[in-house]
Amino acid sequence: MLSGILHYAHELLEGSINKGETVIDATCGNGNDTLFLSKIIGDSGHVLAFDIQNQAIINTKQLLDDHKCTNVTVIQDSHANIFNHVSANQEIGGAIFNLGYLPNSDKSVITKGESTLSAIHSILRHLKKNGLIVIVVYHGHQGGKQEKESLLEYLTSLNQKEFSVLKHEFINQKNNPPFVLAIQKR
Amino acid sequence: MLSGILHYAHELLEGSINKGETVIDATCGNGNDTLFLSKIIGDSGHVLAFDIQNQAIINTKQLLDDHKCTNVTVIQDSHANIFNHVSANQEIGGAIFNLGYLPNSDKSVITKGESTLSAIHSILRHLKKNGLIVIVVYHGHQGGKQEKESLLEYLTSLNQKEFSVLKHEFINQKNNPPFVLAIQKR
Repeated sequence: MLSGILHYAHELLEGSINKGETVIDATCGNGNDTLFLSKIIGDSGHVLAFDIQNQAIINTKQLLDDHKCTNVTVIQDSHANIFNHVSANQEIGGAIFNLGYLPNSDKSVITKGESTLSAIHSILRHLKKNGLIVIVVYHGHQGGKQEKESLLEYLTSLNQKEFSVLKHEFINQKNNPPFVLAIQKR
Repeated sequence: MLSGILHYAHELLEGSINKGETVIDATCGNGNDTLFLSKIIGDSGHVLAFDIQNQAIINTKQLLDDHKCTNVTVIQDSHANIFNHVSANQEIGGAIFNLGYLPNSDKSVITKGESTLSAIHSILRHLKKNGLIVIVVYHGHQGGKQEKESLLEYLTSLNQKEFSVLKHEFINQKNNPPFVLAIQKR
């Protein structure tokens, strides 16, 4: 069976993140990926979960409380400012982005190409060897196409000796379904 | 770690083919995928391995002899004629294609869009529910671009209610590296 897109994104992270590592949810939204990461890294690990929207912070904290997670720091800030929250020599075990808008919320607040690229660039400098940044690209909304295109332009230009960039997508589906991008540091 | 393209193709088949099934290597070449399929299905299964080139048939038979495989029928015919070798109600557990030319051989003998599409079309009619056709697309050679494009045009048009079509590729590599297509019958 072929995995669905969200399941495949999780399989990639599960296969590359180890217990005890520090990892990043760059767009915590309703907290589902934050919770997933929290379980992978265990009590000795640390999740940094970012979102700019107050509602996302509230929802994520609630979900983490419900599951008694104590290994997460939830930060209301743009992921473009990740470097302000990570010490200079901190190694990152992996990261996930969900690009688009907060489900069931204000569709005018969306991730944007410029801050997304800035966040990816920051994380790549801290990412462990063979670590992954996994990006679930929702692009059917207003502004989604521009973000997708600037992201693809940047990622296809990454030096193949330093990074492998995978694109994993279903190509016979209508209505701009999400796809997965994964950047591995070599 | 991200799997390489050939390894990922094998992971997909390993996850979807069961012991005892009948499966197809549509382009047996030097026999590596045939041998792989032979091991998955076990003594009670059956591999039908096709190639139009005499050298491919010789190489594949030699490899199978070396590994004492007795569950393979090697057939020197175009995969476009697969329907001549499969009975009307035979269920197929999965199939693999390697598109391009026989490695270390005559580069003018290549798979072509028309016969590749005909073969895929035949196998889809026999494929089990949730079964996969996995296609490793080499397209850097003369004629490869045309085959790739006709294949993508056909596969993107498949009804998403009947089939899921996955494209899995590394997008920052030079020299037209191969990528994977996988068609799942729903």
